[in-house]
Amino acid sequence: MNSTYQLDKKYLKRCFILAKKGAGKVSPNPLVGAVIVKSGIVIGEGWHNKYGDSHAEVNAITNAKVNISGATLYCNLEPCCHSKKQTPPCVPLLIENKISRVVISNIDPNKEVNGRGIRQLKNAGIQVSTGISEQEGQELNKYYFKYVSKKIPYISIKIAQSIDGKISESKNKQTWLTGEKSVKYVHKLRSVYDAVLVGANTIKTDDPQLTVRKVKGRNPIRIIIDGKLSISLKSKVIETDDTQNTWIFTSKSSNKRKVKSLTENGVKVFQLKSNENNSLSLKKILNILTKEKITSLLVEGGADIFTQFIQKELFDELIVLQSPNILGRGIYSQNIQKLKKLELLSTSKLGEDIKLVYGKN
Amino acid sequence: MNSTYQLDKKYLKRCFILAKKGAGKVSPNPLVGAVIVKSGIVIGEGWHNKYGDSHAEVNAITNAKVNISGATLYCNLEPCCHSKKQTPPCVPLLIENKISRVVISNIDPNKEVNGRGIRQLKNAGIQVSTGISEQEGQELNKYYFKYVSKKIPYISIKIAQSIDGKISESKNKQTWLTGEKSVKYVHKLRSVYDAVLVGANTIKTDDPQLTVRKVKGRNPIRIIIDGKLSISLKSKVIETDDTQNTWIFTSKSSNKRKVKSLTENGVKVFQLKSNENNSLSLKKILNILTKEKITSLLVEGGADIFTQFIQKELFDELIVLQSPNILGRGIYSQNIQKLKKLELLSTSKLGEDIKLVYGKN
Repeated sequence: MNSTYQLDKKYLKRCFILAKKGAGKVSPNPLVGAVIVKSGIVIGEGWHNKYGDSHAEVNAITNAKVNISGATLYCNLEPCCHSKKQTPPCVPLLIENKISRVVISNIDPNKEVNGRGIRQLKNAGIQVSTGISEQEGQELNKYYFKYVSKKIPYISIKIAQSIDGKISESKNKQTWLTGEKSVKYVHKLRSVYDAVLVGANTIKTDDPQLTVRKVKGRNPIRIIIDGKLSISLKSKVIETDDTQNTWIFTSKSSNKRKVKSLTENGVKVFQLKSNENNSLSLKKILNILTKEKITSLLVEGGADIFTQFIQKELFDELIVLQSPNILGRGIYSQNIQKLKKLELLSTSKLGEDIKLVYGKN
Repeated sequence: MNSTYQLDKKYLKRCFILAKKGAGKVSPNPLVGAVIVKSGIVIGEGWHNKYGDSHAEVNAITNAKVNISGATLYCNLEPCCHSKKQTPPCVPLLIENKISRVVISNIDPNKEVNGRGIRQLKNAGIQVSTGISEQEGQELNKYYFKYVSKKIPYISIKIAQSIDGKISESKNKQTWLTGEKSVKYVHKLRSVYDAVLVGANTIKTDDPQLTVRKVKGRNPIRIIIDGKLSISLKSKVIETDDTQNTWIFTSKSSNKRKVKSLTENGVKVFQLKSNENNSLSLKKILNILTKEKITSLLVEGGADIFTQFIQKELFDELIVLQSPNILGRGIYSQNIQKLKKLELLSTSKLGEDIKLVYGKN
């Protein structure tokens, strides 16, 4: 009844589910799950669980209950073949264990792999099928693929706004627009993005912790753009635990004593040369984040930061959490200069709010 | 297998479908459909098709292929029992034809009926079931129920806006934001609302026809609020066919010659005393519309009109057609003074756009 194609899709779907167990923990590595099937029975499963730990394929082989010779290995990413990394390559292991077929949804764009893994498998007489459920595999590892191919993090802008596109009732005043479900969703996002980013005004107005509290998960790196180093040393991002996860981008001319004090507090301070208009270059910041292996970035506000990222088209998706309010007077989410056409990718209700995800057109 | 309750729901659903065939044609009457069932077989169906024509029950009886004695009549509205109207009452007809059971989703709130129809049926020994699928019946006739019970039209505000809550790029310039499917949807709305309403600025900026062209259906009454009677006599709403369906609300001090010229053109001009701030009272306008038997009103713009209706809470639903654009600079859809909490009732995609329907919280 089940064709090979349908079975391939079924086991790859299982790989996606396994792979997600590593979300938020494997970066800058990709999310990978592996399933070993012999005579129609799943005999081993594994996933990459943490950066530095063994790969999904290795874990699946280790977990296999019977001899895997002649089995099919399903994996959402091309097995690795290079040794310039923390763990040994997977391809020789598959050959050695006499796997007869390998089914892959996506080729690894990492230039050390990028088809070479597949070629080595084929040269060893292993049958290889690729491109099955490729889109889902692409979505699963969208951060990794963007980071590896474009050398820049995957950037999502998250705007919580009213029906009339406002983010607060007035400047320097926090307005709580969205409901509990949206707040939980934001915490979930923080738990899977490598880093979140806000401007100094958001710290001064809202004094957010930018941590994961409403759901289980690890905290992201907290990035603050603060050209003048104007935020208070008593801000929650400075005072609360995990200060080594707070990174501040400021100008070279910022107050040395404050820089020293922050550094002593565990905060990582990056000092950049300011632009002529006294601001910091987003591109330079993103280049540094790329070097620091930040593969995914959630931009959380406020209006000035949103404007810069949207204006310069420095984003992959715009997540609008729209509350059922009309604010009337208030602060607009952004103030770009020219119409930008986007594409509505998905919609879903979050309690009283609606989530609208837009991509670049 | 089917309980009586399930069968009742099934035939009432059919009544709703039949009733909708009269949409846009029966106002100020309600939409009504009727089904006659005998021994489990549908023997007659009917609906109220046009204001002044015979009622759904009468049509169902006329269409019945066999003797209806002992049959059940399904109807989404309580049959009428009063004779202060164009057609004879339905209740005596049902009694006379020996209908044994009547199933109704909604009681008619019209004070001439309002339970009296049901009592008369019961007194004649007819079994009556009510309140089944009442919510759907309420939604079907939301215009009628609002109009009859509150003595004011059902008001929907339709805003076509960008993600950032703007309706055009600049004042006095039309910006086409939404796509073809949204435009069709607006024409569909126009075909079922008794009237559409815009401000003079919308006529001057967009020069819309405000007619139904993209779908089949009759044109609504076109209402323009133009305190100073400033719109051009060459505007499409004045020059195109069907000018007797154009109504202008203006102040008593407006140019007499222009009023005369418009009236000669077929346009209906209502002259009201202006408020101290030189504007016309929306409440007075709505009172006149109620007297003119406008049961449903679609408010189409622009920003000043939206602001007035939202500010004064003179609406039942807010329909936001949100295009996938960020305008940045531009004209905001409205400028109310105080936060209004609404409730998201439904969402659906319209091509590239999304439709968000909000109700008052």
